[in-house]
Amino acid sequence: MRRSAVALEEIMEKLNETIANIKPLDEGAMAEARFRQNNLTKPQGSLGQLESLSIQVAGIRGNPRPRIVNKVIFTMAGDHGVTQEGVSAYHPEVTPQMVYNFLRGGAAINVLARHVGARVVVADLGVAAAFEPHPDLKDKKVAMGTRSMSKGPAMTREEAIRSIEAGIDLVEGELARGIDLLGTGDMGIGNTTSSSAITAAITKAEVALVTGKGTGVDDEGWARKVNVIEKALEINRPNPEDAIDVLSKLGGFEIGGITGAILAGARYRIPVVIDGFISGAAALIATGLSPLVRSYLIASHQSAERGHRAILDYLGLKPLLNLDLRLGEGTGAALGISLVEASLKILNEMATFAEAGVSEKSA
Amino acid sequence: MRRSAVALEEIMEKLNETIANIKPLDEGAMAEARFRQNNLTKPQGSLGQLESLSIQVAGIRGNPRPRIVNKVIFTMAGDHGVTQEGVSAYHPEVTPQMVYNFLRGGAAINVLARHVGARVVVADLGVAAAFEPHPDLKDKKVAMGTRSMSKGPAMTREEAIRSIEAGIDLVEGELARGIDLLGTGDMGIGNTTSSSAITAAITKAEVALVTGKGTGVDDEGWARKVNVIEKALEINRPNPEDAIDVLSKLGGFEIGGITGAILAGARYRIPVVIDGFISGAAALIATGLSPLVRSYLIASHQSAERGHRAILDYLGLKPLLNLDLRLGEGTGAALGISLVEASLKILNEMATFAEAGVSEKSA
Repeated sequence: MRRSAVALEEIMEKLNETIANIKPLDEGAMAEARFRQNNLTKPQGSLGQLESLSIQVAGIRGNPRPRIVNKVIFTMAGDHGVTQEGVSAYHPEVTPQMVYNFLRGGAAINVLARHVGARVVVADLGVAAAFEPHPDLKDKKVAMGTRSMSKGPAMTREEAIRSIEAGIDLVEGELARGIDLLGTGDMGIGNTTSSSAITAAITKAEVALVTGKGTGVDDEGWARKVNVIEKALEINRPNPEDAIDVLSKLGGFEIGGITGAILAGARYRIPVVIDGFISGAAALIATGLSPLVRSYLIASHQSAERGHRAILDYLGLKPLLNLDLRLGEGTGAALGISLVEASLKILNEMATFAEAGVSEKSA
Repeated sequence: MRRSAVALEEIMEKLNETIANIKPLDEGAMAEARFRQNNLTKPQGSLGQLESLSIQVAGIRGNPRPRIVNKVIFTMAGDHGVTQEGVSAYHPEVTPQMVYNFLRGGAAINVLARHVGARVVVADLGVAAAFEPHPDLKDKKVAMGTRSMSKGPAMTREEAIRSIEAGIDLVEGELARGIDLLGTGDMGIGNTTSSSAITAAITKAEVALVTGKGTGVDDEGWARKVNVIEKALEINRPNPEDAIDVLSKLGGFEIGGITGAILAGARYRIPVVIDGFISGAAALIATGLSPLVRSYLIASHQSAERGHRAILDYLGLKPLLNLDLRLGEGTGAALGISLVEASLKILNEMATFAEAGVSEKSA
C-alpha cells in the first residue's frame, strides 16, 4: 500500500506549503494592544486572561485592534476500526446518525454555535457509512473508517497526509466567506481511544493515566481500552518525532482533519480555539509538524476526559473554562469563542482613562 | 444614633417580608429537566455543569423548560471611609468617576453586558459625591460613604437595613420590564477591605489569608490593609451569627445593596449570578439572613483576589470561570450569564435520541 518517498512528497505539497507559511506572532501589534489594555479604565491586569487573550489575537492577526465578525467551527467526523475491540459504550452507527443530527441543527454544537453566532462546517473525513449528498455536508472522505490500531496501522501514511490536507482544504474553502476566529470539533465513536494513544505516544505518559471512560464505558470496558491502546503502541511503535507516523498508526481521519484545520488557521493567521481531548490530540500532531502553531492556539476548556490535562500541560495552554464537559463536537470551542470575542470587545470598545476623565492609580 | 428595637422592626418590614417569601427550589421541575437532559442526543452527563446549571434554573423558576429573555446586571456603587487609612491604590474620587463611565457606556461592564445582551442598572447606594440627576442612575444613596471601620461601626444598623432594602427595591423596580436572570456587580474604592473583613468575620478565616491586593496596593499597602482589618474586627466585634451586625460594622452600602438584590432574586425565583469577591461578601450576608438563598446562587467565576476562594468554599459553590478576573462591576457575572443562558438553550433546543433517530448507549 505504501507509495515511494517521491510520490509521498508530491502528495505532501499542500501540507509542506502550509507549514512553510506559518510565521511567528506580530510582536509590534501585541505591544500596541498591551499598551491600550493598560490605558483602559480598569486597574492594569484586572481582566486577567481576557487581557492576555486580546493581546495574543492582536499578534495572530497582525493588527493591534482586531475585530471578530466571522466565527467558524469545523466539526469533523470519522470512524475507528478499533471499536471492534469493544472500547466504546456506543455503536459506530451513532457517528453517521450524529452527522445527520448536525445537519438538522439538533445537536449540542448547533445550539451552542447559534448561541455564540458561529457557523458550523460539518465534514465527513472518514465515516464508515455512505451519506446522501447534502448541501451542508462537506465530503472529504478518505476511507470508510480506519482499521483497528490494535492489529496494525490505523491508516497508511498517504491516508494520514490526505486527511490533514482535507482539513486544510476545508479552511481554505471558507476563507472567501471570512474566518476571524476558528473553532475545532469532532465526532467519531471510538476516537477517545485514538486520542489517548496519541497522547501517550507523544507526551510519553502512561496509557492508564491518559485514558478515560469516553462516552461512558464501565470499569471493565476501561481496562479493555487501556489494554488495546498498550497493544497498539507495542505493535505499531509510532515514532513520537514523526507526527504523521503517530497519526497514521493510531488514527483517526477526523483527527487528521482537525490537524489540518489547525495548521491552516496558523498559516492564515486566524486564532484557533481548540475544543477538548480529541482536538487536543490533533493539536499535538499539528505542533509536532510545526512548533510555531502553539502560539496560535487557545484552549477553550479542560475536558472531564482523563488525558486532556496531560495535553494542555504538554502544550503549555491554560484552558478558559472548566465545566466538566466531555462531549466534543466543538461544544467547548463554541463557548470559548464567545470569551475570545469578549476579550476583543474589551480591547476595542472600552474607554481609556483619558477619554473617560477617570483618575489613574495614585501610587 | 440607634433607634429603639421597635422602630427598627418597622424599618425592617420589607426585609422581613422578602426573607419570609424565599422558598426551596421546585424539585418536580428539576426532576423533569433532569429527565430531559438524560434524553438529549449526547452521552448522559457529558455537558457537565451546563446540565446541572439548567436543572438548577428549572428548580428556581419552577419550570422544567425555562427560557431566558431578560438579563439584568445590577451594578451598585458606594464609598468607604476606610480609604482614609491608605488601604487602596486609587483615590475615592474614582468611584463617582467610574459611575459616570458606566452611564456613558465606556466601562468594562458596559462592554460585556452588551456582549451577552444584558441591561445594566447602575445605582448609587452611598457614593461620597453628589450626582447630577441622570435618567439611568438610580438614586438609592444611604449616606455620603461609610465611616472608617477601623474607628467604629462603618454604618448604623438602620443604615445597613436601608441599604439592603434599597437593593430589594432596585430589583422590584425592574420586575415589570422582566428579569429572567439577575447578575450582581459593584463599584467602590476600598470595598475589597470591607469584603475581606466580612469574609474573615463570617468564615472565621485568618485576615491575612482572605486579604488581597485589591486594585493593586504594594506589599506595604497590603500589610497596612491587613492591620486595619484586624483592628476593625477587634474594635467592632461583629457577631457572625447576626449578618446585619457584620454588614453594619464593616460596610459597605453597595455590599448591602447587593445583599438586597440577592435576597430579592431568591424571593422572586430569579437565578442570581454573583460576580467576584465583593458580590461574594454580599452573598455571605444574604445567606446569613436566609440559608435558602444558597440554592439560588450561581458563582460566575473565581476571582484572582485572595479571599474569594474562602467564600466559594464556605458557600459550597463551584465557579463557572477562572480567568483571573479581579475588576468587579459585574464583569464576571456578565460572562457567567451567557453560560447559564447556553445551558438553558441546550435544555430547550437540543433534539432527543427519539426525535433525531440516534441509537442510545449499547451497554
